[in-house]
Amino acid sequence: MKGSVSPQENPAQAAKESHANVLTQRPLRIALFGFGTVGSSVARILLESQPQGLELTHIFNRNVTRKRVDWIPASVEWTEDADAVLASKDVDVVVELAGGLDPAGKWVRGALDAGMSVVTANKKLIAYHGVELERLAAKQGGHLKYGAAVAGGIPVIPGLEQGLAGDRITRIEGILNGTCNFILSKMDEGADYETVLATAQAKGYAEADPTEDVGGFDARAKLAILMRLALRVIVDPEEIVPQAITAVKAVDFSYARDLGCTIRQVARAEQNNGSVAATVGPMLVDLHSPMAWSRGTENMVIVSGHYGGDVVFSGHGAGGHPTAVAVVSDLLALAHGSRRVEIPSAPASVTAEFEVPHYIRFLVADRPGIVAAITAALAREQINIRAIVQKSGYPAQALPFVVTVEPCKSSALERALASIRTLDCLLVEPLALQILE
Amino acid sequence: MKGSVSPQENPAQAAKESHANVLTQRPLRIALFGFGTVGSSVARILLESQPQGLELTHIFNRNVTRKRVDWIPASVEWTEDADAVLASKDVDVVVELAGGLDPAGKWVRGALDAGMSVVTANKKLIAYHGVELERLAAKQGGHLKYGAAVAGGIPVIPGLEQGLAGDRITRIEGILNGTCNFILSKMDEGADYETVLATAQAKGYAEADPTEDVGGFDARAKLAILMRLALRVIVDPEEIVPQAITAVKAVDFSYARDLGCTIRQVARAEQNNGSVAATVGPMLVDLHSPMAWSRGTENMVIVSGHYGGDVVFSGHGAGGHPTAVAVVSDLLALAHGSRRVEIPSAPASVTAEFEVPHYIRFLVADRPGIVAAITAALAREQINIRAIVQKSGYPAQALPFVVTVEPCKSSALERALASIRTLDCLLVEPLALQILE
Repeated sequence: MKGSVSPQENPAQAAKESHANVLTQRPLRIALFGFGTVGSSVARILLESQPQGLELTHIFNRNVTRKRVDWIPASVEWTEDADAVLASKDVDVVVELAGGLDPAGKWVRGALDAGMSVVTANKKLIAYHGVELERLAAKQGGHLKYGAAVAGGIPVIPGLEQGLAGDRITRIEGILNGTCNFILSKMDEGADYETVLATAQAKGYAEADPTEDVGGFDARAKLAILMRLALRVIVDPEEIVPQAITAVKAVDFSYARDLGCTIRQVARAEQNNGSVAATVGPMLVDLHSPMAWSRGTENMVIVSGHYGGDVVFSGHGAGGHPTAVAVVSDLLALAHGSRRVEIPSAPASVTAEFEVPHYIRFLVADRPGIVAAITAALAREQINIRAIVQKSGYPAQALPFVVTVEPCKSSALERALASIRTLDCLLVEPLALQILE
Repeated sequence: MKGSVSPQENPAQAAKESHANVLTQRPLRIALFGFGTVGSSVARILLESQPQGLELTHIFNRNVTRKRVDWIPASVEWTEDADAVLASKDVDVVVELAGGLDPAGKWVRGALDAGMSVVTANKKLIAYHGVELERLAAKQGGHLKYGAAVAGGIPVIPGLEQGLAGDRITRIEGILNGTCNFILSKMDEGADYETVLATAQAKGYAEADPTEDVGGFDARAKLAILMRLALRVIVDPEEIVPQAITAVKAVDFSYARDLGCTIRQVARAEQNNGSVAATVGPMLVDLHSPMAWSRGTENMVIVSGHYGGDVVFSGHGAGGHPTAVAVVSDLLALAHGSRRVEIPSAPASVTAEFEVPHYIRFLVADRPGIVAAITAALAREQINIRAIVQKSGYPAQALPFVVTVEPCKSSALERALASIRTLDCLLVEPLALQILE
């Protein structure tokens, strides 16, 4: 800081001092950590667009021989030695694209410790350690930016930090996992889960072990990040209990469509009288709602502000190029000295308590009295039934039928389901999904 | 600047210096110019949310007696003397919400001249004089922010400046005028233009003289601003020729629906081989496209990036509270010293040359040979006909029918229409609308 007063300590002064002109001097020297799909897209954009103020100087990868490509100019140093890059005086920013908590976390900490800035697309690291890493960055004089960590190429994070900072966001709903959206929108068209998962794996949309995606763990990490920025609460991602999409069957799409809906993996959180509810899982969304617009691997985020109402962001949430755009945009923000608008956030614990209508699908060996038993269990919890739907064409020994209920607390429904689960006619666990209205 | 080296001259240094901590010192002192719908919303948010670093100190209005309200604390000075505020040493930021070129322009220049920063929602001023005003701000050490000038509460401008800066945007399509969207979506439901305009005027959505809105002038000013930020071209808004929505009749909605479309006022611009095309007017949009989602006074912007693909922003484009959110967000960005990412832009001239399919509606006194004459005129310009649609139930002496054509250059269609206009059977000017696909 050259001994001067830090401008941000005085907003009036900061507003005068921080003027961005055309950048004329030394560019930011960038070390890429990871040269997979996103990393090579970042390199390509930097080389093709030559944005002012940015210079790619290092590429770190564990196996340079396998990764090296001829379109990277000789001025860029390829290396397998992460520590040497982190100790280098010739690097201003580390772009971390390795993903996961380790060793990515060690590299990010190393870079921030050295006073470098870090741009990352690592949702898991930011969801679990973002607050600590931001403190470290602030202490050491660097910056941490992660616009690519949620919804890739859709500028949700800059939108929240810059354009909606003046609002008080009360609710977030998002389609944050492209893999699940691809799988569910294909299942909606008639494909079965195993086939479409195999397609997604062949196309590179899904991992060999798809648990992170289909189990909802990826989306909950992203939701935790959005909750901090939008709802201004610091939450432990582990407190958000995800529901896997694997429980959704073809019959559910058929029933959902009869109800004017389709099924999407939705991550949602809301703030109500000081308590914070959050969950991730397959939900019924109205065919005419924005949520149903998202097809294939697209992402969508809807934030509801106390003053500004609903704002919808939609686009390509993943993929090399869209994610790389977010990374390069963060790099440009660093080069232009664009500080984040930091709204104070506070730790909060998370409940799973929503008050919404639900869809409950049962699969039973039919016998008299089942509906009576189920409706009685719901009635004991003061849950009103909206509709009971039973489509024809299914065998009595494995009969699916659906009960929809008026808005009720998640906890009340859970108690009713605990009682219903004791019925011996159930062939599988009842599937309860939130209906978004 | 206290004699120090300006950080932005050295991106590497800027990245290290510009750290935003919790704001502890003197807040930005804010003078509101204009206390109408948006101005009072800004005041309300500032007083209710008490955002750190912001303090409302002055309200200028031409008639304080009429505007004064009791919920503004006594510490805020009401004044009818703009010059005194601009000469005050106790103001850091002027929030200009008067609108129009004059006297708003004089006030904004006065504030920037005095080294103050300015936050404005004034699309006209920014469209016509934004470049000059930004230069003035840079020269005097202040900042100019106008996130509220386009699409009110939807963070399109921060999204472009921060989140998409790393992409190369090639196309913008937007529903940028809530009044037109309200009128056209109501007409789509069966209302006639005069009735719905009167409703819009009664609700405060439309001015007594609606020309700015329905003529497309408001949307073209907003488009010119987006073109600078997204396509990075500085254009004269007057070069964008708008088409009024007043030429659209009930019959057009009927024909549009038969084509699987509805009609929206769309502002669009694209960059192609170094030339820039832009236009504003009613267009046919597919009922299943994002453009058709926007109802009532909602706004929507779709930007297409070379790397990131399409990104959709949607929400409340106007209204006191949503616009005020954008203003307060800009104020927070100033307080946090968040500099804009300034991507160089260059002057460009605008053509109206698009290559898209068109809808052409004729209203004729029927006689043999009309279709032959029209199709011959189109054929002379190598324009392929897609469909000729004539619905029954109209009188022969005032018969509407529609020709849709395959993608053709706007100039070729204009030449064909010039020839068609000489036909004496036409009762009104043919209505040619772009079909967005």
